[in-house]
Amino acid sequence: MARACWGCYRWLVLVCACAWGHPRSLDQREDVRNCSISPPYLPVTAVNTTAQLTALREQMHTQNLSAYIVPDTDAHMSEYIGECDQRRAWMTGFTGSAGVAVVTMGKAALWTDSRYWTQAERQMDCNWELHKEVGTSPIVTWLLTEIPVGGLVGFDPFLFSIDSWESYDVALQDAGRELVSITVNLVDLAWGSERPPLPSEPIYALQEAFAGSTWQEKVSNIRSQMQKHLETPTAVLLSALDETAWLFNLRGSDIPYNPFFYSYTLLSNSSIRLFANKSRFGSETLQYLNSDCTGSMCVQLEDYGQVRDSVRVYTSGDVKIWIGTRYTSYGLYEVIPKEKLVADTYSPVMITKAVKNSKEQTLLKASHVRDAVAVIRYLVWLEKNVPEGTVDEFSGTERLEEYRGEEDFFSGPSFETISASGLNAALAHYSPTKELHRKLSSDEMYLLDSGGQYWDGTTDITRTVHWGTPSAFQKEAYTRVLIGNIDLSRLVFPAATSGRMVEAFARKALWDVGLNYGHGTGHGIGNFLCVHEWPVGFQSGNIAMAKGMFTSIEPGYYQDGEFGIRLEDVALVVEAKTKYPGSYLTFEVVSLVPYDRNLIDVSLLSPEQLQYLNLYYQSIREKVGPELQRRGLLEEFSWLQRHTEPLSARAAPAASLASLMTVSALTILSWSV
Amino acid sequence: MARACWGCYRWLVLVCACAWGHPRSLDQREDVRNCSISPPYLPVTAVNTTAQLTALREQMHTQNLSAYIVPDTDAHMSEYIGECDQRRAWMTGFTGSAGVAVVTMGKAALWTDSRYWTQAERQMDCNWELHKEVGTSPIVTWLLTEIPVGGLVGFDPFLFSIDSWESYDVALQDAGRELVSITVNLVDLAWGSERPPLPSEPIYALQEAFAGSTWQEKVSNIRSQMQKHLETPTAVLLSALDETAWLFNLRGSDIPYNPFFYSYTLLSNSSIRLFANKSRFGSETLQYLNSDCTGSMCVQLEDYGQVRDSVRVYTSGDVKIWIGTRYTSYGLYEVIPKEKLVADTYSPVMITKAVKNSKEQTLLKASHVRDAVAVIRYLVWLEKNVPEGTVDEFSGTERLEEYRGEEDFFSGPSFETISASGLNAALAHYSPTKELHRKLSSDEMYLLDSGGQYWDGTTDITRTVHWGTPSAFQKEAYTRVLIGNIDLSRLVFPAATSGRMVEAFARKALWDVGLNYGHGTGHGIGNFLCVHEWPVGFQSGNIAMAKGMFTSIEPGYYQDGEFGIRLEDVALVVEAKTKYPGSYLTFEVVSLVPYDRNLIDVSLLSPEQLQYLNLYYQSIREKVGPELQRRGLLEEFSWLQRHTEPLSARAAPAASLASLMTVSALTILSWSV
Repeated sequence: MARACWGCYRWLVLVCACAWGHPRSLDQREDVRNCSISPPYLPVTAVNTTAQLTALREQMHTQNLSAYIVPDTDAHMSEYIGECDQRRAWMTGFTGSAGVAVVTMGKAALWTDSRYWTQAERQMDCNWELHKEVGTSPIVTWLLTEIPVGGLVGFDPFLFSIDSWESYDVALQDAGRELVSITVNLVDLAWGSERPPLPSEPIYALQEAFAGSTWQEKVSNIRSQMQKHLETPTAVLLSALDETAWLFNLRGSDIPYNPFFYSYTLLSNSSIRLFANKSRFGSETLQYLNSDCTGSMCVQLEDYGQVRDSVRVYTSGDVKIWIGTRYTSYGLYEVIPKEKLVADTYSPVMITKAVKNSKEQTLLKASHVRDAVAVIRYLVWLEKNVPEGTVDEFSGTERLEEYRGEEDFFSGPSFETISASGLNAALAHYSPTKELHRKLSSDEMYLLDSGGQYWDGTTDITRTVHWGTPSAFQKEAYTRVLIGNIDLSRLVFPAATSGRMVEAFARKALWDVGLNYGHGTGHGIGNFLCVHEWPVGFQSGNIAMAKGMFTSIEPGYYQDGEFGIRLEDVALVVEAKTKYPGSYLTFEVVSLVPYDRNLIDVSLLSPEQLQYLNLYYQSIREKVGPELQRRGLLEEFSWLQRHTEPLSARAAPAASLASLMTVSALTILSWSV
Repeated sequence: MARACWGCYRWLVLVCACAWGHPRSLDQREDVRNCSISPPYLPVTAVNTTAQLTALREQMHTQNLSAYIVPDTDAHMSEYIGECDQRRAWMTGFTGSAGVAVVTMGKAALWTDSRYWTQAERQMDCNWELHKEVGTSPIVTWLLTEIPVGGLVGFDPFLFSIDSWESYDVALQDAGRELVSITVNLVDLAWGSERPPLPSEPIYALQEAFAGSTWQEKVSNIRSQMQKHLETPTAVLLSALDETAWLFNLRGSDIPYNPFFYSYTLLSNSSIRLFANKSRFGSETLQYLNSDCTGSMCVQLEDYGQVRDSVRVYTSGDVKIWIGTRYTSYGLYEVIPKEKLVADTYSPVMITKAVKNSKEQTLLKASHVRDAVAVIRYLVWLEKNVPEGTVDEFSGTERLEEYRGEEDFFSGPSFETISASGLNAALAHYSPTKELHRKLSSDEMYLLDSGGQYWDGTTDITRTVHWGTPSAFQKEAYTRVLIGNIDLSRLVFPAATSGRMVEAFARKALWDVGLNYGHGTGHGIGNFLCVHEWPVGFQSGNIAMAKGMFTSIEPGYYQDGEFGIRLEDVALVVEAKTKYPGSYLTFEVVSLVPYDRNLIDVSLLSPEQLQYLNLYYQSIREKVGPELQRRGLLEEFSWLQRHTEPLSARAAPAASLASLMTVSALTILSWSV
């Protein structure tokens, strides 16, 4: 114990000075609605949605609909959506990122996952039922009890993936209800002039220094994949916003936290059509795109709203369109004749983009060094200020954004910062607001999950800290989460293994004692695109791991009503050198911020895990130390040295080995043969 | 070393006496065809298939087909098939269990996986191309190059699963070729009178002592699931042979190694229709089935060949048929109107059968104790006889079957025994024949993968042994396979985890050094049914693990042209007791035969793995020891005691810990801050 804490002497002094005097804030969980009393109790955060529902039901009546489905995505199957696409939030009051609403003439209901149950109870009024389930099946079950046989269920085909259309369609048709595609969105009609306008900010080209290849090289690459494809598609249709942004090295600001712009691309073997509002391109960008010609290397700009008609016209010829079904809306899919469709799960752009070339890798790593500087500055600042009682979850995020803002090439946070103290961290995706937040305290754990968008790379890192005296259970849970992170990070696995097959290594140390976490273990990430850069990651449906991919690794543990832990790093998939020759991979962690030694129970780590951790700390010193020195951040440099002192096994593992051997010996003695 | 080997003193004496004097047999790999020379070289094992192809092409010509697909399954999507269903083997000469043949007017081709490449080269003549790939996609690719646009591709809808029909149909239709369903099998027409007749052996009821529940209880259970189902099916259609066998506790002998009989069941809420030849039931069995009445608890027997027409007639009413799509052929699926279909991946019988009740668990465990006695007798016999040079792979299997035959309730092997010496074991599914086999030798490793069908349970166990001096690499590979088996067996994981998510724990120790194996990690198994009792197991598509399931755990390693290792046990899924409360599962291994100490490098095992292994050995002693004594098998009892002596860590792990700590210390010293 003594040795392990030697390096964190100052940390301990601070902690001792501030471990008391800050009474735990009261649980504010009464701030949720109660619809079972009369009159219903509604917190101030609840939104009155009566007018919205009335307006939507008028539209439904016009179309003779029994129900209308309001999904949580946009026409590009985006995870983050622009203000003008926040239809479900406008209808329900609930602003969480995931959740589907369904409105009938008499009822209204929302389905969302466990991350958002509390938030939904805080934001929705009693017009809404909350269903604590996700997926098509429970929604269909509910629809079948609410609407009669023969009833029509309306939906906007641009907001449905092909898969979700299919599962609703089959289930409803089997039960005698009909799913009706209506291309005019009924929520938009109800929303009327209050709906935020489509963005009109400029669309710009990345500087060459920040692009892995030119757009011409990328276009040639995709065309050569079209030629090699067995079914010889004549064009690729790109629907996901990051596909078009990546292909042309263009960026915009239509989507919060994601440097994207509303767009589609139809890339044929002889032409390039980019669907986006032409007025948003400056003359330099138009020149960059060769937009004044019509050859095979000229980008023809067409109006964003024209895409469905253009695809329909294109498919009247002797052509074949290659799509990725995951990101193509039913609204485009339904206009392509089946015999002219080449359907893979992901488009060739999605698959190509998933592997970063060496320039992209270098760029992404560089952004992580600068991001580590910002996060370390914040941790140092917290260590000094939290004991003063002057920091809350929200003011903390402001400070952090200041620090990131001082880093080169910073262009904003990569997602809404999760800054959660004490019990708030048990809500895996809680974010504080200026109005609603909790004070940070040396008596509580604090979870920070944040990231930056830099021109060279996107970052995403989670650290959990405790400035006081954590309980034994908190230390055990933290250490087991850390072991999970380490065990997955140092895993050696065959090339082309799917992440799903190995993600349990991040859970095993928790499972061993009956603990677990309810979210995924990681997601792809890349160069100034969306923070969740699918299809790389550990989820089912993610593509196989390959050298050059970047993914987060982020196990956690959440004790409801008490605390939350998550340790997240970004890692590059690299070749592993194995004793026997073969094509094997492992991870190289590129996030460079030390974990909280105050929360690590070293006795739980195996010698191999400890050795790995110390090597990682050595790499943090080597990569971030010089940068701190160069910037004259000497206090931070000294903090880094203390926090990356090699951890020692002390006597514990030897002792536990000895005790195991004793157990073993006793077992042997007690055997009666 | 001394202590670890103390218990295997006699073993060592034998090994020393016989470690030399047996020169390694020559590699007989020249025994494959060579179609690239003129005239082609054909081994004696190759079958002349010219007549078969001519006859089939005549039938294809009549139907105006450009190609005809010959799959490897039967009308029940069975893994093992009866003689009359060996169409692909009759056409090609290749008798492996997996492989699809396609015949055009000018060419003939077979697709099979790596297990069977050598076997195919041994058995096929030069009429056949061998394609070393599997799945629909490469077959379609080939078809597109071989047959013109507009060409017709024929198939028997009873031999196609719904999924494979769909994938062929979409791909061929997209490319302008047509898939044509022909209910009369063209291979059967070509085969003519030489085709083996459909079996007519008696179908019999299991004794009550060996059935987990009565058929009436099972029928009531399935009917109650129909009532609870959201889509309220009025009937369940059972297509897989084990579904009908399980539901009625009936068995037959139509399929080698599987106690099944050709059958379908249409279980409605008011009737039970069993499609099978009535003449095969004795009067007692007819009475047992209440076959002389028509009430809801009476089993009406209908002719096996009538099923398609009966299903069609049934669906003309106001009904809904619940099917499991995985085991229903396209031949039945295509006659059910879509709006009358309730389609899940697996039928409720498949899902219910997957979890064994306590009686079934007790029965299965008892069969494994007796099976262990037989396998141990065989290992003892081998240890004495292999050094004499009198045992070969095939005579070994005969001896093993003798031993199993002396066990109570034995009814035959549960699959063709894999008895493979030296390089033959690198072919993961090699089986010797009376004509073609290799002599067992103390200089080589020997792999035995075998199992028995007992009235109370099905067994499946693999052990790999070496009676001489294994190489360091063989010991390392064996020990890493063993570690994989141990690590998966002792894993604690949340209830309802899918096997796919955890199977990598069986691979990690191999991956660590760049080794792996190319087959799955395990399959369900149960009470006197098929040895691969899907959908339990570790494959993708298998259902989530639940308490009461049995699965094999069988990592391996194969060094091409040299040796093969596999260690397979059957394990019961049981509740795990965790430090913190929660619903967690782990495995209880019910196979009870020790591993080969001669091949274990104890220094590679962690203290926890060693402790687990010794506890397993203790359990073998406790369960099998008394049975050996009771039977007066004293030599075997003494062998068992020696082979289950607790293994000791010796000094090695402590030393390696010390060396790790030294490395760690050196690392620390070398850090320049």
